[in-house]
Amino acid sequence: MTGYNNTALPIGVFDSGVGGLTVLKAMRAALPHENFVYLGDTARLPYGTKSPASIARYAAQATAKLVEHDIKLLVVACNTASAVALDALREQMAPIPVIGVIEPGASAAVAARPGGSHLVLATEATVRLGAYRRAISSRDPAASIREESCELLVALAEEGWTSGGIADAIVRRYLDAVQDENFRADSIILGCTHFPLLRDVIVAAVGDGVEVVDSAVTTAAVVRETLAANGGLAAGQQRGTLKLLATDGVNRFARVGGQFLGEPLTAADVQLVDL
Amino acid sequence: MTGYNNTALPIGVFDSGVGGLTVLKAMRAALPHENFVYLGDTARLPYGTKSPASIARYAAQATAKLVEHDIKLLVVACNTASAVALDALREQMAPIPVIGVIEPGASAAVAARPGGSHLVLATEATVRLGAYRRAISSRDPAASIREESCELLVALAEEGWTSGGIADAIVRRYLDAVQDENFRADSIILGCTHFPLLRDVIVAAVGDGVEVVDSAVTTAAVVRETLAANGGLAAGQQRGTLKLLATDGVNRFARVGGQFLGEPLTAADVQLVDL
Repeated sequence: MTGYNNTALPIGVFDSGVGGLTVLKAMRAALPHENFVYLGDTARLPYGTKSPASIARYAAQATAKLVEHDIKLLVVACNTASAVALDALREQMAPIPVIGVIEPGASAAVAARPGGSHLVLATEATVRLGAYRRAISSRDPAASIREESCELLVALAEEGWTSGGIADAIVRRYLDAVQDENFRADSIILGCTHFPLLRDVIVAAVGDGVEVVDSAVTTAAVVRETLAANGGLAAGQQRGTLKLLATDGVNRFARVGGQFLGEPLTAADVQLVDL
Repeated sequence: MTGYNNTALPIGVFDSGVGGLTVLKAMRAALPHENFVYLGDTARLPYGTKSPASIARYAAQATAKLVEHDIKLLVVACNTASAVALDALREQMAPIPVIGVIEPGASAAVAARPGGSHLVLATEATVRLGAYRRAISSRDPAASIREESCELLVALAEEGWTSGGIADAIVRRYLDAVQDENFRADSIILGCTHFPLLRDVIVAAVGDGVEVVDSAVTTAAVVRETLAANGGLAAGQQRGTLKLLATDGVNRFARVGGQFLGEPLTAADVQLVDL
């Protein structure tokens, strides 16, 4: 077999840095026999505060690098890149399937709370582009939607301060800024791959009855269904392999990334590449 | 007159983003008749978590762009770039003088607290490179020095959350992490250009008697002395001009940068350039 339905080929995963490792973690759990190649564009992170033109160019370059690894499917594990560049990447990659994180997240939120009030927590670029708003509205015209950019949550996750009073105060400040008598969320969408690390703090702040949607898990399910549908799903007994690539700072990638992947990493696990 | 002692030529200022505008602000106050060209490399910020090789390459490219504006002096208004690339930039620019922010900051701290206990708050890269430690030790072998990387303070400043309980709690957590029975700072060096925005919070947290050193003011004084020494100081009645260049996101540059410069900016004030 050759081509994108060759089950032995790896799944390519692309992110601006280490955040997408939360998506990789979910995929490794849901798809244990798959091989993965993950590229973190750490030389140019964060994407969340960059312009759409720059983000699109970076995404195309990262995708070209992953194509060198003969991937059978591409996951854009970065909300900002998904918001900006998904259509262009699908054109670049066809017939190889390309899956972003926004559409699965929107589907999960709408399924959990039909006609609901959705609050999207994301980066500046993702909010500015309104990608979640469009994805939710097109699935559920009755949905009510607000979006809030939360750059400090990115820094909190990277610093590893994911519990305690400071994380709690910051989360509550963002939630208070966007909720009022006209809008009270019954669904919170973690619209940045860093935010699953703050899931417990967010759940505690919003209380029971509010659905907290982590698109990593839903994205993993969509990847599984897509591979199964085109006959590309790996099977067998063996645990799949994992290759990690970064465009800068392999030491930092290993140190911070280990928290995101949920497995300890060393610099020797990460290969430095140029785009 | 031509060359670097032509008083009418502008001073070039380079930073990874908007942080260096705190240094520009101090220089505009101390040198009101000078013309300035400021370049913020917003497409590739932050430098603080990047590798030295990448930072050195970015700094050389930014400097080459500023040279096109025929500058008479270069200020590296970024602690990380100063720590990594100052010697290489001096070689690239000779005989045009190049002034970083670390040496002036170290001199000011040592002058204020001879034999003192200095705590440097900075980014990861600046701390890893130990540039403040070397600069202080070479000026005062009796000095005691600790360095702490404080990435969340960068995010706080960019978000504009520069006062109140959250900023206070974060500052205190960093200070507590690095001070103990063996080390109590009597000088705090703001080793990142973002941190002057948090000066009031830091002063409140450390209490009276601790010197808080902001290298922006000292750097402005060194620039003044250097220009005067080589006959390049602008004089006259007219307020100098200001040209702002950024490599990405002029809207965000104007919005966030206005807080740093202490003057409102619009996107029309900022020119997009490629490096």
